[in-house]
Amino acid sequence: MTDITIIGTGNMARGLAVRALAAGKSVQLLAHEDKSKADALAAELGGQVATGVLGDSVTGSIVMPAVYFDAAKDIVSRYGESLEGKVYVDITNPVDFSTFEGLSVPADSSAAEELQKITPAKVVKAFNTTFAATLGAGEVDGQQLDVLIAGDDESAVAAVSGFASAAGLTPIVVGPLRRAQQLEQAGFLNILLSANEQLPEFQWNSALRFIPAA
Amino acid sequence: MTDITIIGTGNMARGLAVRALAAGKSVQLLAHEDKSKADALAAELGGQVATGVLGDSVTGSIVMPAVYFDAAKDIVSRYGESLEGKVYVDITNPVDFSTFEGLSVPADSSAAEELQKITPAKVVKAFNTTFAATLGAGEVDGQQLDVLIAGDDESAVAAVSGFASAAGLTPIVVGPLRRAQQLEQAGFLNILLSANEQLPEFQWNSALRFIPAA
Repeated sequence: MTDITIIGTGNMARGLAVRALAAGKSVQLLAHEDKSKADALAAELGGQVATGVLGDSVTGSIVMPAVYFDAAKDIVSRYGESLEGKVYVDITNPVDFSTFEGLSVPADSSAAEELQKITPAKVVKAFNTTFAATLGAGEVDGQQLDVLIAGDDESAVAAVSGFASAAGLTPIVVGPLRRAQQLEQAGFLNILLSANEQLPEFQWNSALRFIPAA
Repeated sequence: MTDITIIGTGNMARGLAVRALAAGKSVQLLAHEDKSKADALAAELGGQVATGVLGDSVTGSIVMPAVYFDAAKDIVSRYGESLEGKVYVDITNPVDFSTFEGLSVPADSSAAEELQKITPAKVVKAFNTTFAATLGAGEVDGQQLDVLIAGDDESAVAAVSGFASAAGLTPIVVGPLRRAQQLEQAGFLNILLSANEQLPEFQWNSALRFIPAA
């Protein structure tokens, strides 16, 4: 049994893997198709990382597909009932990139809720408001990253919250899974700032935070 | 001509007035019904504050009703065409307080857009993500407050952005008025944290910020 399975070998996969290893977790890293990509990232990361490809058994008790929403749906469909009992972390921002005007999920739903409809895993929304580039250090301008979390299963939420803490981040449990609707709108806002050429201070390396009074 | 007209005498009215005076602006303060409330707040504030009641001519070039969304609609209806040419700052979060589950505006709209449909003023969304208690100092834990701004009229947006800067805050112009949809979801999220008894660190005095890399 591994602690965490990460699917994908892109920037978010790298960032999540760095934090998992910093937290002392064992990691299974599954490439989409080409195992050599997982091997290359594992070599770069060091630490306890087993590699494989999509379709291999998920050994982690927590699985984090670090892919876009459409790919996440495919992954969930492909693994089917085998994800039962797993904690599934949905990190996606289902931005409609054809218009960049909104989200591609129904207004009264969210990517996380759509995924929950098609998987027996315990879906938890998290990490959709943290840019990949910030996960390496786990902080921006000296401030720990907030990890905003929404989920219906208490033990699953606690597992993700515990992971974030162990990884040197600040978990904030926002509420039930339907609050992913707000987290995805906040994630979209975060993306809009970095995509806006008139805001040169935002370069996909900023942090969305809720700062408590001192 | 006054710089800024604030309608209402509650905590957000006080906070906005404090920042307006800190920015060296002249303020007209209109109570909802009872002028003595405006007089009392003006006396507390010091500075250049003219008082009156709702229904008096709006002398400010920028008008900020510091009221709930339903009251804002009434104000806009009442002033009708007389608001033409004014910059109207919509600070509301149209949370459905009967369910606390979402917003009371259509999913493809926002309070700001709904107000724009019924007023000739230039509506700008701003200050819906800053809690009243934080506006007095203009900062939380030593960090300047972000003021997230959305609007369609360039000069109106510039006026609000300039006001925020002069008031010692950090304006971030997010985009056109329809981006108020995201700002209101983010404002809702901000409210949810303080309303959540399981998050004792959030007490209606926290700050939502987008922190650029150093």
